Amino acid sequence: MMPVETADPPAEATIDAFHRGAFFLLQPAGRGHRAGLDAMILAAAVPSGFAGRLADLGAGAGAAGLAVAARCPGARAVLVERDAEMAGYARRALALPQNAALGGRAEVLVADVTLCGEARAAAGLADRAFDCAIMNPPFNAPADRATSDALKRRAHVMPPDMFRQWIRTAAAIVKPDGFLALIARPASLEAILAALAGRFGEASIMPIHARAEEDAIRVVIRARHGSRGGPALSPPLVLHDAGRALTPRADAVCNGKASLFGD
Amino acid sequence: MMPVETADPPAEATIDAFHRGAFFLLQPAGRGHRAGLDAMILAAAVPSGFAGRLADLGAGAGAAGLAVAARCPGARAVLVERDAEMAGYARRALALPQNAALGGRAEVLVADVTLCGEARAAAGLADRAFDCAIMNPPFNAPADRATSDALKRRAHVMPPDMFRQWIRTAAAIVKPDGFLALIARPASLEAILAALAGRFGEASIMPIHARAEEDAIRVVIRARHGSRGGPALSPPLVLHDAGRALTPRADAVCNGKASLFGD
Repeated sequence: MMPVETADPPAEATIDAFHRGAFFLLQPAGRGHRAGLDAMILAAAVPSGFAGRLADLGAGAGAAGLAVAARCPGARAVLVERDAEMAGYARRALALPQNAALGGRAEVLVADVTLCGEARAAAGLADRAFDCAIMNPPFNAPADRATSDALKRRAHVMPPDMFRQWIRTAAAIVKPDGFLALIARPASLEAILAALAGRFGEASIMPIHARAEEDAIRVVIRARHGSRGGPALSPPLVLHDAGRALTPRADAVCNGKASLFGD
Repeated sequence: MMPVETADPPAEATIDAFHRGAFFLLQPAGRGHRAGLDAMILAAAVPSGFAGRLADLGAGAGAAGLAVAARCPGARAVLVERDAEMAGYARRALALPQNAALGGRAEVLVADVTLCGEARAAAGLADRAFDCAIMNPPFNAPADRATSDALKRRAHVMPPDMFRQWIRTAAAIVKPDGFLALIARPASLEAILAALAGRFGEASIMPIHARAEEDAIRVVIRARHGSRGGPALSPPLVLHDAGRALTPRADAVCNGKASLFGD
């Protein structure tokens, strides 16, 4: 989790260890979005026994998809990122000798998640080509705190109608009986549930609280393709204890030692 | 909370103490819906300092509305119930000497919550006439476990489009800046958030878990009239500890000693 520079980072990049060294990311130094707890928590929503093809939609440097590949030996991750610069970091990360343990079970696809129909398939996102999709989409409304960092802005600003577009793509590319997992702000719950309706059902919603006594800062949702069942609310994940340390469960979840839903 | 028969119940009715004897309900014996934890939890969503006119929509025997009146000395509750038989129980409860402490701050209105426009106003539910509305609507889908008890069925079976109809009425009768609180099953979250949209915002969603390690059995939602802000997820309420006893917080909430959101 900590951005520990381990060996020979390319210029203007850091090599950061995740899952206590089980895999490494290459990230732009001092700018852009930096992967962290959100991506690790999202990855933990995938059952530990998952085997098959996973699409990490909006993968950035690849944090969530690689975290699944590192924890689930049967997973093959496709890191889908429209930003060629970020996709380049992900591709170079896959070539790092430190990631040899992933056994080539990850690849990068430069594609825009919001594409539709034939354009989406032509970009490499064929219908029913994946067993699951995960997404950690931009969180900030266009009006939220602006940043002068263009790379970060592209990763952080949520365009209108985003959830409908992204979940529509997930519904197209995931096989029947596959699933979708996403992490978002609780403020987006209505938009997410509306976009899931008719596409994914039986959503398990897990609130993520920084501290037990505070409102949730994130929500993880995992839902089954083609189901029409209503959502369920799982017991929350609390990240920090009374001090600033991660709780034992959060530490296990964020370091690849436990799945979020216990499966 | 326990159905303790205290004095001279009318034939086929029980007089049940709530909030450890702070108020009493009259309920049909052996049939119909019996008020319990749900109504007490809903009532606790009203801030302790609330003063003004409250509509308990679908009040049944009056449990939630009377629980607010008992806890909030400035509250005046209108118990809105379409079922004349249940409204009769509520009316007789208000006349019980055991409820003299409520000081006449509750009344019964026989009206159908799903009415619209002029018909709704003619039934006694005038626009902007209330400072808040609370609702504990039927939970079961029409296809769910049937009961041969017609009185219970009328209270338990959720017609299609129910949340939109009920929340539309709440939005009409609650003043600007007023609020709505409701209790429902987590499976109804999407329908509720969709019905709130454009009417009530800044929803505080509190999951209610029977036990800490299990999925939530209920969700309490409190939202502000006219706001367009997105929802927040509050820390959950856990009802039972490792044994079968109520947790201290649940006991306080269910017995009128604490509000649900701490305000």
